[in-house]
Formats: sequence, structure tokens, C-alpha cells
Amino acid sequence: MTRLTVDNINPHVRAAKYAVRGELAVKSEEFKALVAKGEAQSLPFDNVINANIGNPQQLDQKPITFFRQVASILENPQLLEKEEVLLNGLGYKSDVVDRARWLLKHVGSVGAYSASNGVPAIKESIAKFLERRDGFPANPANIYLSAGASSGVNTLLHTICANPNTGILVPIPQYPLYTATLSVLDATCVPYYLDESKNWGTDINTVRSAYEKAKADGTDVRAIVIINPGNPTGASLPEEDIRQILDFAAKENLVVMADEVYQTNVFVGKFHSFKAVLRRMQQETPGQYDGVELASLHSISKGMVGECGHRGGYFELCGFDPEVEANIYKFVSIMLCAPVIGQCFVEMMVNPPRQGDPSFELYDKEHSGIFEGLRQRANALHKAFSEMEGVQCGEPQGSMYLFPTIDLPPKAGEAAAAEGRSPDEFYCIRLLEATGICVVPGSGFGQKDGSLHFRTTFLAPGTEWTGRIVKFHKEFMEKYR
Amino acid sequence: MTRLTVDNINPHVRAAKYAVRGELAVKSEEFKALVAKGEAQSLPFDNVINANIGNPQQLDQKPITFFRQVASILENPQLLEKEEVLLNGLGYKSDVVDRARWLLKHVGSVGAYSASNGVPAIKESIAKFLERRDGFPANPANIYLSAGASSGVNTLLHTICANPNTGILVPIPQYPLYTATLSVLDATCVPYYLDESKNWGTDINTVRSAYEKAKADGTDVRAIVIINPGNPTGASLPEEDIRQILDFAAKENLVVMADEVYQTNVFVGKFHSFKAVLRRMQQETPGQYDGVELASLHSISKGMVGECGHRGGYFELCGFDPEVEANIYKFVSIMLCAPVIGQCFVEMMVNPPRQGDPSFELYDKEHSGIFEGLRQRANALHKAFSEMEGVQCGEPQGSMYLFPTIDLPPKAGEAAAAEGRSPDEFYCIRLLEATGICVVPGSGFGQKDGSLHFRTTFLAPGTEWTGRIVKFHKEFMEKYR
Repeated sequence: MTRLTVDNINPHVRAAKYAVRGELAVKSEEFKALVAKGEAQSLPFDNVINANIGNPQQLDQKPITFFRQVASILENPQLLEKEEVLLNGLGYKSDVVDRARWLLKHVGSVGAYSASNGVPAIKESIAKFLERRDGFPANPANIYLSAGASSGVNTLLHTICANPNTGILVPIPQYPLYTATLSVLDATCVPYYLDESKNWGTDINTVRSAYEKAKADGTDVRAIVIINPGNPTGASLPEEDIRQILDFAAKENLVVMADEVYQTNVFVGKFHSFKAVLRRMQQETPGQYDGVELASLHSISKGMVGECGHRGGYFELCGFDPEVEANIYKFVSIMLCAPVIGQCFVEMMVNPPRQGDPSFELYDKEHSGIFEGLRQRANALHKAFSEMEGVQCGEPQGSMYLFPTIDLPPKAGEAAAAEGRSPDEFYCIRLLEATGICVVPGSGFGQKDGSLHFRTTFLAPGTEWTGRIVKFHKEFMEKYR
Repeated sequence: MTRLTVDNINPHVRAAKYAVRGELAVKSEEFKALVAKGEAQSLPFDNVINANIGNPQQLDQKPITFFRQVASILENPQLLEKEEVLLNGLGYKSDVVDRARWLLKHVGSVGAYSASNGVPAIKESIAKFLERRDGFPANPANIYLSAGASSGVNTLLHTICANPNTGILVPIPQYPLYTATLSVLDATCVPYYLDESKNWGTDINTVRSAYEKAKADGTDVRAIVIINPGNPTGASLPEEDIRQILDFAAKENLVVMADEVYQTNVFVGKFHSFKAVLRRMQQETPGQYDGVELASLHSISKGMVGECGHRGGYFELCGFDPEVEANIYKFVSIMLCAPVIGQCFVEMMVNPPRQGDPSFELYDKEHSGIFEGLRQRANALHKAFSEMEGVQCGEPQGSMYLFPTIDLPPKAGEAAAAEGRSPDEFYCIRLLEATGICVVPGSGFGQKDGSLHFRTTFLAPGTEWTGRIVKFHKEFMEKYR
């Protein structure tokens, strides 16, 4: 018998759930391998559509040319010795060369470790971006580069959670990084349900009652997580919701963790950053909100950048105790530093070509093209859902996801139970087997008891595949009616 | 008062120590900033030498041209549309273009997430490398790409450590990633001392007594960590030591974690991988060693590659239970995947240009040049130490470090105590202030009570700085004699 068995390993690792890359994802990879080998004759579809992961460049989304041209020079700085060839032979614009030189000057080699919390000049560039975005100062010393936002969340939760009694308010449904990390840390997830009837908005009364209940149970609730725009819901919060959360956090002395990785994926209204709203509240009511501790996270993985394979991101801390920040610094040091080329992508994301720059025109065209493509596909998918029996889905607002409710016949529930599955999981597996489309059951994100959902990205090219879902759904409903 | 204070955050994060990037490193960064701004007039040195971190490209080491040329194409695949310019204008060889095409075919975009455990084709390439290196089969399914070896160690220790009673045998002195991670996990470090009198070798009797003592104390000792070649010691283990450890692990049913990131930095004798030795023992004595669970780690950060900023590495598991592996897969999924460009560097490291390939000549020249440079600087530094009063240092064997013993006068100990510092820390701070050379005190890695050491890399260019150490040491000894 092996020394390590599933029964004696870390029980908190064992307990963690992460459905986004679970059984369905593994099965879809197997189908993809068959397709790639030309052995898909037995399958009722010709290709697999990975609508389960927000992985833009795996699907339609092309990288932004400016970013990649600069990165090619960062990887091979010897190219700068042939500037003539870059400009004339390869058609690189002069601002590509300038940016690469600037980054190399401040980064040194992208093959060297940077400071643990990131390259100082990149932190300064992020601070300037935050100032432009929010209209309030940002201090580079409070900015930490990370390997994607996931790594930032991991750092923050590791620091905040002191013992099993530490409670963190987490929206449900949520991106399962939060519940999985809390499982690993053996801390307490305090769920608050988002309001599907209000397009998955945040209802402060629901938050308060979740908080009060946990407190009454003796849980030491320390922080509240907000994902805005939402994952998996796609909701984009109005300023008023954000004000209510910050007000609540100030009164109850809760740390606010704002996951804002979809801040540029907003189709309805506009994005309001927690930082800007907090600073406005602090100005309007001096003293009352000064103590709020806010951590806000961003990433190169989503938006029009979509460079998730490069694992880049950052978080900014406001109002944290310097000794706590020193521990955060030490914690990130143990893993040395975020990938340096990823840090450079963060710099380019927050400081892209501007009007008048040689690369601006192409950048702007690519950026708008991606944004419009996302919006169009979101609408096409939404339209398809509206035609499907028993499926309800709010209008697309933001992020990369739709999260429709599905109302399945009792017979489908029975068939699912016979396989030891939840009905939504059963539905998603049948969908994958019939169409090659991989989505994630709502149970992977959490949902109210008795309700069923699935999450799909709207990244996959074309609209043909939405037709496949409609057809499958019809047949499924016929079969189990 | 803030919600989070140093007294209420995670006590295990607070307890973790990571001296490699601690006070001395921070102070050296401050000095560097002064030098960069031209404000170093008040300092008694002109430049800062970061001999505290194994960060090759921050110092002398140039990246390998083949790797970086391929990476430039991976970052900007549009370059392949101008192959003519690449070959003739930029002087890229045809195998650079071929490798980039091959990687892009299997990876897709380096901006997309890969499978959680890495790109399948890269895992296959690693398996082939392991087969060539060891002469035994390797299964890609047991290989996991990681963000440097640090992330792999983090994954493995998270899985293995079930509760505070789990014990892990860790060499002392050690790279503090191990003790820091065990602190964060609130598991028990079971130290075994390396034998300085035998060039920091592993003495199996010492290991056994550390194990027996921990077992007698009720600790559930599950695994043994070996760093070979050693960090901070530079020791390169003979095959006999490895056999004894594997034999001990088999008898006591311990998981073996072999940190082999310095496998190409060997100056004396040759590198023996734990995997190859284990497989030989399994062949020689059928049945007796079949149950050994071995995890071996490698990285692109060290060796002649030195691409630590790219955060790439992998680990291979042998003999692990499939259900345990499923949990490891799930754990790595939560952080999505290792940086994809870092994965590509792993592929190039394990599959570099070969004799006859167009890029081979340059690759070979660069590779040997780096190796020889390391060896020469190691010897120069060793010679300097041999001339210093009260300093003893074994001959350089491998890795990137020397770890001399320093014998300081009692007065130095008193002066250190007056500052609330250990004598070695006191010595290293004075060295930094006087010379700009940053090394790490032995206490950051662990050392026997009453002994004092420091760790220095031998990466910094030239030998002038070794003279600075000699001069400082003489003055220090005069002052405190």
C-alpha cells in the first residue's frame, strides 16, 4: 500500500471542489484528442466547443498585436540591434520599439526574478492607470503583481484566514476559486445569495442576514468578496450596490475583496471600481469610511487582452496595516515573483497605445473588434436561450458568461439520480456527449436549492454552435417530458 | 484600528521565515536605488552585488540565444508569415523556426490557458528527456508542469501534509522554501543535519536518528526532502548516499521528494537522479523497492538556462496512488495552469539543439561558456575564502552557492547581541553596508547551534568583488578581535 492514500492526504485539499476543470472538462479533452487524431467518427459532432472556461485565445480571440510585438522583443532583445529590420522588414511601429526599450531598461532581463511584489516601474505605471481610471491617487507601494488574479486571491485569503472560525462572505453563485481556496485553508465560507430576479445583483439585506446568521453562530466574519462584473453571472453592479456594500463593510469592520478582472467587459451601463466609489464616499463623509480595508484585483487574462496563459495580474491594497502588508510581502516572496513577461503584459494593458501613437489605430481596431464580437455573441446566445423551453436568462451585462436557469422535467431528475448526479450535471454531460459543447453545471458555482443553471462563455466563434444547443435542448425535453 | 492586524492574521503565515528576500535583500534594493539615481556618494561602494539570490540573468548570465529566438516567435507568431526576414534579415536558423512552429502547433496560443497539468506534447517531450537521462521509461501522465519548482513543492507539501502532526524530514541547512511552506501549512519540520565534515553530504545515521526521535515524539513522519545538488551547500551527492536514502525510505515507507533543480550545475563527479537510482535498485532487488513513492522536481530557473523570471518547472511522480494524483491534479487546477511560455522554455531545456542542428554550435558555445564561467568564479571565490582568517569552505561541487563557516571573535557576538541580531546576521549586514555585497546569513537556512555561515552565489561577474569581501573581513576581524 502506498504511503499516501486518498484517505490520509490533506483532508482540506481532498474536500476542495473545482468544477470548472472537473469531470466534464476532462471528458471534453478526451473528445478533443479523438477529433485531433481523426477518430471522431463515432461521435455525433465534428468539433468540441470549450464554453466551460474563460480562455479567450483558445477560441476566437486574437492577441492584441502591439502587446505581442513588444513581447517578442522582450524575449529576444538582440532584435533591437536590428531596429532597421524590425521597422522596415517586419513592420513594427516605432512605439513598439520604444516600449520594449523602456520595459527592458526597467525590468532588465525577463528571465531574471523581479522584486517579490513586482518590477517597481511597472507598479508605478499601474498606479498612474488607477489614477486616470479613478481620479484619485494610487501608491505603487501598495500594489502587488501576481500570477493572474487567482494567485492574488490565494495570497489574500492565506493572510486573512487565521483558523477554521474565520468567515469570508462569498457571493453564490461564485467563481469556485473562492470556495476551493477556503476549503484548502479550512476556513468558513459564509455564502450570500445573489438576486437572480434583479439580474444577479447584490442585495444588501441578503448580505446582512448571511452575516448576522454567521456571527450568531460564532463565526469571526472578516471579509466580503464581490466579483464585479460577475462570474458566473455576468452581472455589472450599479454604483448604489457598491456604496451599500462599502457602507456595510465600514459599519461591520469587514475587509472588502473586489475581484474586478472583468472591468472592461461591460455591455450595459459602466464599470464602477470599488476604489473610486470608496474614495468618493470618504470625501463626501469625512471620517466615516477612512478605516475601510479594500483589496482590488485585476488581471491580463480577461477583457480584450485575454492573455491568461501568461499568468499576469495585480492587486492594490487600500487602508491595510503596514505590518499586515509586510506579511503579505513575505508570503509572495516565498514563491519569488510573478512571471516577469506577465508583469510586462500588465504594464501594456494599463498603458496601451494612445491616440496619436503609431500603433494606436490598429490597437483600437483590434480592441473594438473583440469587444463588439463578444457583445454580438452574447446577444446571439441570449436570443437562443430565450427560444428554449424552460430556460430563462437575463440580458447580457458584462464579463464573458451567461448563466441561464434551466427548468427540467421530473423524469430528467430521476434519470440523473439513477446516475448519482445532480440534474444540472446530468444535463451538461448529455449536452457534451450530444453536441461537443462543454459548459459547467450551476452546482459548480453554487445555486439556490431547487434551482438549476449552467454557465457558458460567449467566446466561441460563430453562432452555429448555439443552434446545436437549441436542438439538443429540444430533444432532451422531448425525451424526459 | 484596522480589521487585520499582525496579531490576528493567519499565525502560520506570520510564523513563516524567508530570509533570502528578507531585511538584507530589502536593504540592498534601497542601496541599488540610490546607486541608480546617482545618489551613492555617501556609500563606500559604487555598485551593489546581489550574491543573495540565485538569479543568473540579473548578473552575468546571458540567456541562451536559441531559447529566446524561439520565444520571440511564440510571442508573435505573425513573424512566421515573414520567414524570409527571420532567416535572412535577423539571422534566425531554420531549427528556430521549426521549433516555434512545432510548439505553436501543440500549444496553440501562449496566451491561452493550457491543460491544468501542462501542454500534453510538452509532457511527452519531458518524458523522452527523462528516458534519455535515466535509461528508464517515463510516463507523461505522471508529469506536472509548474510555475518553477517552488510551485511544485507547494503543491506536493499541500497534498502530503494532513495536519500539524505530519512530519517532513528536511535537510539543514536547506533552501527556506521548505520550512516556510511547512510553517504556512502548520505541519512539522523534522530537521536532519547535513555533514559539513563530509562536504555537506547526507549521513543516513543522522537521518535515521532524526526520524526515530520524531517518531518517538508521536510525529507522523511521511516524507523526506533531499536537495541535490545542495542549496545552500552546493553538495553533489554520490550514488551511494542516494541508495541509502531510498533504502531507508522503502523500509520506513516514506515519500521521497528530490529537489533536483541544480542537476546540470555539477563540477565534481556526476549527477545521479533519484529516479534512475530507484529504477536500478528496483531491477537489482525485485519487489523490495516497488512501493517507493518518488516526486522529483526540476526547473528552468537554474543551470545554464537561468530563466527564473519565466517561472517554469515540472515534477514527475513515481509510484503515487492514482486517487492521490487526482487530488494533485485538482489542486493545480485551482491556479489554472503554469505560465505557458514558461512551459515552452521547459520543453526547450529538455530538448535543446543537438549536434548537427543549425543552432547547435552557438548553443553549445553559450552553454559551455556559462558552465565554465560558473566553475571559474566558484574557484576564485573558494580561493578568496581560503585566505580569510577563521573562514572554512569545502571545495565547490555544484549548484550556484558556497556556504562557508565563519568563526567570529566573541566581541563580534557581543556587538551583534547589542543590536538584537545573531552574529552571522550582524556580519552580513556589516558586509553589505561596507561593500555593497549582499549575502544571506546561515541562520536563514538553519545551521548547527554555535556554528556560523553565510551563503553566497558565485554568479556575479568578475572577481573584483571577492577582493572586497577579503578586505572587509580583515577589517571586521581587526575591529572585533
